[in-house]
Amino acid sequence: MIKKRIYSPGPVDISPETALEMAKPVLHHRAPEFTPILKEVFEGLKYVFQTEGDVLLFASSGTGAMEGAVSNTLNPGDKAICVRGGKFGERWSQLVTTYGGVPVDLDVEWGQAVDPQAIADHLKEDSSIRAVLIQASETSTGVYHPVKEIADIVKGYDNTLMIVDGITAVGVMNIPTDEWSLDIVVGGSQKAWRLPPGLAFASVSEKAWNAVEKCTQPRYYFDWQKERKGIAKLSTAYTPAVSLIVGLRQVLREIREEGLESVFSRCASYAEATREAMKALGLGLFAPDSPSDALTAVLAPEGMDAQAIVKHLRVKYGVTIAGGQDHAKGKIFRLSHMGYLDALDMVTCVAAVEMTLRDLGHPVELGAGVRAAEEVLV
Amino acid sequence: MIKKRIYSPGPVDISPETALEMAKPVLHHRAPEFTPILKEVFEGLKYVFQTEGDVLLFASSGTGAMEGAVSNTLNPGDKAICVRGGKFGERWSQLVTTYGGVPVDLDVEWGQAVDPQAIADHLKEDSSIRAVLIQASETSTGVYHPVKEIADIVKGYDNTLMIVDGITAVGVMNIPTDEWSLDIVVGGSQKAWRLPPGLAFASVSEKAWNAVEKCTQPRYYFDWQKERKGIAKLSTAYTPAVSLIVGLRQVLREIREEGLESVFSRCASYAEATREAMKALGLGLFAPDSPSDALTAVLAPEGMDAQAIVKHLRVKYGVTIAGGQDHAKGKIFRLSHMGYLDALDMVTCVAAVEMTLRDLGHPVELGAGVRAAEEVLV
Repeated sequence: MIKKRIYSPGPVDISPETALEMAKPVLHHRAPEFTPILKEVFEGLKYVFQTEGDVLLFASSGTGAMEGAVSNTLNPGDKAICVRGGKFGERWSQLVTTYGGVPVDLDVEWGQAVDPQAIADHLKEDSSIRAVLIQASETSTGVYHPVKEIADIVKGYDNTLMIVDGITAVGVMNIPTDEWSLDIVVGGSQKAWRLPPGLAFASVSEKAWNAVEKCTQPRYYFDWQKERKGIAKLSTAYTPAVSLIVGLRQVLREIREEGLESVFSRCASYAEATREAMKALGLGLFAPDSPSDALTAVLAPEGMDAQAIVKHLRVKYGVTIAGGQDHAKGKIFRLSHMGYLDALDMVTCVAAVEMTLRDLGHPVELGAGVRAAEEVLV
Repeated sequence: MIKKRIYSPGPVDISPETALEMAKPVLHHRAPEFTPILKEVFEGLKYVFQTEGDVLLFASSGTGAMEGAVSNTLNPGDKAICVRGGKFGERWSQLVTTYGGVPVDLDVEWGQAVDPQAIADHLKEDSSIRAVLIQASETSTGVYHPVKEIADIVKGYDNTLMIVDGITAVGVMNIPTDEWSLDIVVGGSQKAWRLPPGLAFASVSEKAWNAVEKCTQPRYYFDWQKERKGIAKLSTAYTPAVSLIVGLRQVLREIREEGLESVFSRCASYAEATREAMKALGLGLFAPDSPSDALTAVLAPEGMDAQAIVKHLRVKYGVTIAGGQDHAKGKIFRLSHMGYLDALDMVTCVAAVEMTLRDLGHPVELGAGVRAAEEVLV
């Protein structure tokens, strides 16, 4: 008997309660029964995003909301700082280029966090920069970028937006949208929201709405003004993904019941436990200095292909994790702390990793990782 | 006890088998377990679209695929005939305008089908027209437009694409993509595919791919070339909606088992039964001359608000149908023949309508509609 377990940084496991909610008969999106569901969801999204502003809801992957963040705010020729410290930072830069903007690429070594001073310098030098585009948590590297520090700089510039990809950060770490003056924060359902993929979210500040009004880019499905009008009528511009939204209501109830503080500290403890476990096994961390609490990126032992670890975990133990992407492929493996996971699940994950390392011939003391994790989790 | 029944032209009811498939633990979209699922789905989509070409798959509503059909093929300044005979025909025109194209609007009275000769005349007059954009089945009116006749005209023009919104047509009526030389056909999951909303499809001919290659519009999430490359690797450009795709596999198996011919004749008989039933109740049809088999749009009795019928059905009988949209609101109600429906479900729907009419004070012979429907269905 081999059970399937998933510790990838999205998709993540979902709760049976959520699965059952989504398996209920499909509702019509314009029927009155759906209105209170949308209302509760729009309110719950504000709670998790910690904002009084609108949080838009899309039937798409997170990339769709990232595209909207660019195509609704930046005009052709507009400059935007793109923090490129991983695959998703590169996506920001590609999006700006796609829409005829001028990306000011701030390249950061994969595994490192950006230095806020570099952003301050760029903005001081060139006040025509219209946005700073960043990941809160770079899913490809496991890095947490200093969002607050950067937002503190950006808010001094009236014509510059702070746009945050929070896809693996919102609902995991404390990213208070309003308190930190974040203009756009993007999220995706298959992450902290412990849902299947297919929903994306975006919070939008008043400063950002001003830019949206002036934006001339062509857009239709990701037309944010149309969605804003939808929210005002407790509706959506186009047919929403009703089953995922019904699941989202369930998850939002669970998050509210637990409370954001508890969610954050729980994810932080899973992350710390995993980091300590990996260190106890003699493995290096890919993002040692500024790790995200959403996932831990671990360096494979010298001379061992990280993909072999990923494969062995899957085949022998039924455990799905993620390898590295692009040039990190083969070098790292990534373990998620998001989703429908409890402390014992994290212990199980560590156990599977240490057994795998031993199976693959790497000398580890079995139980050493688990012990280190338990020390954090008790 | 009031059971919930849904006869709206999307979302539709889904089978318990499909609901259970989608409730299974979430798979990782890059894990090997997902590859055979995607493979089967891509093959099944080709079967239902009746094409050897690629059928792209998106996490979005159908509108996203409609947008992609425009933003991937038409350059700014390009002219495109938009058949505007309903809300969704108007959407084509809006999309062309959004992307800087020039819509050549061919306005058709709601409830009427377009005359292919009008399209032939336009194309003869102006060979710079780059596309004809049409609905196979206009969901807002219940009209079937003569797709084959129009495609026969368009295929004579090497630089003009035949772009079909088949959202409520593919999988309901025989729309053989390749045989009829349809360049783009768009579909959506909450229709004939009897899934929740959240997936969209688009078939693309080689003629259309040539236009895609020359298209300079900005696009990222709906970048069709990127998705085409994805299909070649049995993958998707961005995180796909895995739970809906697992459901889609189940539905495609059911459709293959039944066979397309049987699906089409079954839907046709539901549509005919409903039309005969409504006539037997003394009600007029909104699209009497060229009705779609996907839905029947029915005129409310003189002096009765169609929305009152919609509401009464919902409140007293638990039956969700759709009213009219935009200027047809209050005049018509719409009954779907798509989804997880059998012949007895259609009888039930007719029974609910006749009981509702009596409840609302309209003189009907109870059972007359049901009898007429049964005559067709036996």
